[in-house]
Amino acid sequence: MIKVGVVGGTGYTGVELLRLLAGHPAVQLVAITSRGDAGTPVAAMFPSLRGRVGLEFVAPQDADLESCDVVFFATPNGIAMQQARSLIDAGVRVIDLAADFRIRDVAEWQKWYGMTHAAPELVAEAVYGLPEVNRAAIRGARVLANPGCYPTAVQLGFIPLIEAGLIDLGHLVADAKSGVSGAGRKAEVNALFAEAADSFKAYGVGGHRHLPEIRQGLGLVANEPVGLTFVPHLTPMVRGIHATLYARLTRDVDLQGLYEARYRDEPFVDVLPSGGHPETRSVRASNMCRIAVHRPQGGDVVVVLSVIDNLVKGAAGQAVQNMNIMFDIDERLGLDIVPVSP
Amino acid sequence: MIKVGVVGGTGYTGVELLRLLAGHPAVQLVAITSRGDAGTPVAAMFPSLRGRVGLEFVAPQDADLESCDVVFFATPNGIAMQQARSLIDAGVRVIDLAADFRIRDVAEWQKWYGMTHAAPELVAEAVYGLPEVNRAAIRGARVLANPGCYPTAVQLGFIPLIEAGLIDLGHLVADAKSGVSGAGRKAEVNALFAEAADSFKAYGVGGHRHLPEIRQGLGLVANEPVGLTFVPHLTPMVRGIHATLYARLTRDVDLQGLYEARYRDEPFVDVLPSGGHPETRSVRASNMCRIAVHRPQGGDVVVVLSVIDNLVKGAAGQAVQNMNIMFDIDERLGLDIVPVSP
Amino acid sequence: MIKVGVVGGTGYTGVELLRLLAGHPAVQLVAITSRGDAGTPVAAMFPSLRGRVGLEFVAPQDADLESCDVVFFATPNGIAMQQARSLIDAGVRVIDLAADFRIRDVAEWQKWYGMTHAAPELVAEAVYGLPEVNRAAIRGARVLANPGCYPTAVQLGFIPLIEAGLIDLGHLVADAKSGVSGAGRKAEVNALFAEAADSFKAYGVGGHRHLPEIRQGLGLVANEPVGLTFVPHLTPMVRGIHATLYARLTRDVDLQGLYEARYRDEPFVDVLPSGGHPETRSVRASNMCRIAVHRPQGGDVVVVLSVIDNLVKGAAGQAVQNMNIMFDIDERLGLDIVPVSP
Amino acid sequence: MIKVGVVGGTGYTGVELLRLLAGHPAVQLVAITSRGDAGTPVAAMFPSLRGRVGLEFVAPQDADLESCDVVFFATPNGIAMQQARSLIDAGVRVIDLAADFRIRDVAEWQKWYGMTHAAPELVAEAVYGLPEVNRAAIRGARVLANPGCYPTAVQLGFIPLIEAGLIDLGHLVADAKSGVSGAGRKAEVNALFAEAADSFKAYGVGGHRHLPEIRQGLGLVANEPVGLTFVPHLTPMVRGIHATLYARLTRDVDLQGLYEARYRDEPFVDVLPSGGHPETRSVRASNMCRIAVHRPQGGDVVVVLSVIDNLVKGAAGQAVQNMNIMFDIDERLGLDIVPVSP
Repeated sequence: MIKVGVVGGTGYTGVELLRLLAGHPAVQLVAITSRGDAGTPVAAMFPSLRGRVGLEFVAPQDADLESCDVVFFATPNGIAMQQARSLIDAGVRVIDLAADFRIRDVAEWQKWYGMTHAAPELVAEAVYGLPEVNRAAIRGARVLANPGCYPTAVQLGFIPLIEAGLIDLGHLVADAKSGVSGAGRKAEVNALFAEAADSFKAYGVGGHRHLPEIRQGLGLVANEPVGLTFVPHLTPMVRGIHATLYARLTRDVDLQGLYEARYRDEPFVDVLPSGGHPETRSVRASNMCRIAVHRPQGGDVVVVLSVIDNLVKGAAGQAVQNMNIMFDIDERLGLDIVPVSP
Repeated sequence: MIKVGVVGGTGYTGVELLRLLAGHPAVQLVAITSRGDAGTPVAAMFPSLRGRVGLEFVAPQDADLESCDVVFFATPNGIAMQQARSLIDAGVRVIDLAADFRIRDVAEWQKWYGMTHAAPELVAEAVYGLPEVNRAAIRGARVLANPGCYPTAVQLGFIPLIEAGLIDLGHLVADAKSGVSGAGRKAEVNALFAEAADSFKAYGVGGHRHLPEIRQGLGLVANEPVGLTFVPHLTPMVRGIHATLYARLTRDVDLQGLYEARYRDEPFVDVLPSGGHPETRSVRASNMCRIAVHRPQGGDVVVVLSVIDNLVKGAAGQAVQNMNIMFDIDERLGLDIVPVSP
Repeated sequence: MIKVGVVGGTGYTGVELLRLLAGHPAVQLVAITSRGDAGTPVAAMFPSLRGRVGLEFVAPQDADLESCDVVFFATPNGIAMQQARSLIDAGVRVIDLAADFRIRDVAEWQKWYGMTHAAPELVAEAVYGLPEVNRAAIRGARVLANPGCYPTAVQLGFIPLIEAGLIDLGHLVADAKSGVSGAGRKAEVNALFAEAADSFKAYGVGGHRHLPEIRQGLGLVANEPVGLTFVPHLTPMVRGIHATLYARLTRDVDLQGLYEARYRDEPFVDVLPSGGHPETRSVRASNMCRIAVHRPQGGDVVVVLSVIDNLVKGAAGQAVQNMNIMFDIDERLGLDIVPVSP
Repeated sequence: MIKVGVVGGTGYTGVELLRLLAGHPAVQLVAITSRGDAGTPVAAMFPSLRGRVGLEFVAPQDADLESCDVVFFATPNGIAMQQARSLIDAGVRVIDLAADFRIRDVAEWQKWYGMTHAAPELVAEAVYGLPEVNRAAIRGARVLANPGCYPTAVQLGFIPLIEAGLIDLGHLVADAKSGVSGAGRKAEVNALFAEAADSFKAYGVGGHRHLPEIRQGLGLVANEPVGLTFVPHLTPMVRGIHATLYARLTRDVDLQGLYEARYRDEPFVDVLPSGGHPETRSVRASNMCRIAVHRPQGGDVVVVLSVIDNLVKGAAGQAVQNMNIMFDIDERLGLDIVPVSP
């Protein structure tokens, strides 16, 4: 059994991680920390976990995290970078679901996240946990940077085109739509039901923190910088991300065949038959990414549709997938969930 | 492995049954019939099942249902009663998710369902599949009548009070609210998104088919007829039933203790701590029923709150629970799903 | 033109009041105060009011409220009671959309609202603004207590039965469902989209502040105390209240005729034809209350369905209706809005 | 008073037209036809219109449409083209909310709409009713083609850029999201609540009927053909369209100033302050279009956000606006509705 600790289990990625870990046959949950809710049974805060998670939240200082094999950080940005060092030194592997180790360029990170990085040397060694491009490196990672939700959907959609050198890299467009759980479980007026229901809006058009992460990921695949316009939107649903991607083709190719070949062996990427339109609910509660590729009217623009559950493949599920790889067990263990639809 | 056939797999109870059976470790899915969609891969109609259900729908006459151990009917009312006889004669056990075998009084059934019953002799032998009251009889059932969604939530809420002889049986009130998936996957204007979203209404106040089913069930527990006012409502969510139950207490008792004792050994009924308010999402996608019991201001009215997922404990999940009992395997097998929340 | 001031315009009842006042032909909006947002243009906070409300929020001390003819308080409980005295002394009439003047028994009020009342003498003179029972008194009111949302829907539903002396007053049941805007525009986790969407729950079963208000109102009509069980629920929609009311009939009567006669001359109460089921969307954005009355299976239980828009007839619209009555202009002025459906 | 007839009033554009016409001070509603619902009071089908529309639906042959000043067709495609001729010959002006007269190239129309056009000569004389580009011609129109919902939002967003000659016309992208009412009030499985709620998807990526309409409109403004990729999506809300538009700038300009100048005198187009993100709810139930223009990171890509209520500015409201222009009355009459938010 893998002994697991969770730091910060009171947000949506936290409770989702607990849902997945509670059903994972190779995991023993050792401790879940919360600064504000120490002493509260986890299942009192999240009644969906009644009978499945018997632990109480413990104060960080009271949790024996160093006895764990792996510790997940489901914390706000800026926490994991302060605590990872001592855990690693104690031989504990760290998976950060926040953004502390995602951007290799520390100055760039500091600009977008508005704080000084506490552990730049760990950034250098951290592995970016997108298994579909990085599986080998993940296996040996001590510090794993779990990708953001938008970056997961967008990168999986663009990667086959970029690897094959088929598109104009200067003017990519990613028009992405997220369910409201992506805003987190913080008390903010913007995320109130009566604000977000029955309405639709873009946000962060001027600049969103996932932009540099996506540019970095695509640039590494392309081996050159890419130009990307990224517009996130809020859509009135709880879970799900739908990325609609646009690029200009520079030469002809069998797009359907390309995507099917690229993802044939991936357990969590499903390429729909030609002409398909994936719905977010077709991956709800599961770790799947479903993708369809189109070339409208046979023109020179390729349109890729990519959907994930933002809390699973976009956060907690991908983190568990990464853990499975890191501990060399079946990558699908604990993630064998049939999507919930309707 | 239990060899399973499904008749009528294109509705919401059908696809939900497939979701559960696809993840059930003791089940081999043999055939899924559909009159109108024979030849269509199941996963083409329900993309959430891609990679999990490889079968195509087959025409009823082409399905070798008689080789199955059990056949589920996820059909409209009036189908199972025509086909059950020959299956039973072939040694196949039948679980009907529709209403054909729920009402013991055939005349009453014919009045509410507006058709002549094709197999009244099977009604007599059918077992009503509410495990919390009928587990022993379910074990030996050849024809199992899976309860309706409202009747499940309402009966589980009232049963402890009635068994204990605590309430005035003449004037029970069940105010029940259902998600829209309860209306089925039929093309009807009433169930359109633009009709049902952002609105709330009662329906069937004059009389709903689940009324005689609930009255029968409660009457059997009480050993006398009960007076019940049942008002169903449509609420803008996909899944979930919330029943709010009102009764007048005729004597004093520790209500919390009563409920906890009654359901202590039930794997799928969870009594919340005193003062609780169960949310439907706390059981979403799972087979749990969560119940809270209140006595406002210490008066003589007891209020019970009972929630289920209408497609799981209210339909497909309870059917699988019944199958597990009928085949004498662990009642929880294949139903070990952590609720999906948020 | 009636010169109008609004204290506290940043919540949902506030913005709704502004929507209605902006389209009211006899109103001149003089000032809208906000302690925290002074200097912000109203339309910057509420883009729906761009081009319709040109004012900025002003600090309370900078608003010349004493020059107004009427001041609306769209504030939290406990504010109006502190400021009403000086306004009244300056000849300004006060309409409080909060609860400060709703409960005649000051001790009872203090128990439910958890504070000491600052102006008990104004409670004595305040008029409860339910026009359908109190129109004459409203006309001369200096301090008007605008009813709560649940109390409006519940009282309008029960009143004809009580006035006619038809029901057992000891055991009334009001099962009420509200859209989430009823929780206000406060940053609270409970009201987040990802908490409230696609779920349904009861709350406050042990006791809700609208219970004493409803009991007081019904008791005044009955001329004796009434016994009431009131259970509010949260339903995943933005606006709307649906009250389902249950009472035991003590004698026979033409219920449909009774309701039609009672509300024949009321501009904002609509009795549906026999057998109807009002939807909340049929009154969305309007000041209407729609009611249907049922007697299931001809038994001795009467079921009343009553729907309002909680922000209009349940708050801002009723406040404008009261203002119209107080200033002796057409009661429907500015409220001539066709409901928005779908 | 303008005497108005409505053909086909049972869909969502129909009931919305009735909502607006019921509140229009210069309109007399003469007849509303329906083939299937003749004899039904309009308010029985649409309870939101109780007390506001007293008419019954009449069979088309029984409606004295020729006595009207104007007849609106809120019918499926292919109806207006059969009936317009005789109305026009009788001196009645025709406003078609469907697509019969929108595409000037009849062959192109026939390809996309899959039928032979019954009145090509009327196509030639028909005026495309987008007031912001066509006001003068609208004034004299006998046959008015009311624009589609997506085309309205997309054209209003792109027009200032194209008129100013600022962008690469070969590779425009319009990523558009619509509420589900856009699918109409037809009984179809795809538009069921339990299919469309809590999910998001693209559709028609291979080709949507609004593509040629948008290309025609933008091409007329540009005076040359434009290349456009148009991807519509379904978002789980009732009303609203959000178009996110992408184009490559070919030269520098003050984009904010350009948009403000272009729409300064338009009563129904509102340009948000720089940096804004319009929400669909900010125009709910109103005829407004709100637009924001962005240039992310100061690069060479312009992003325009354009929102409308698909049933108002995208259908019935724009039709009334066109009627007002055609009959030379204040363009805003009957459209003076403050948006309903929240």
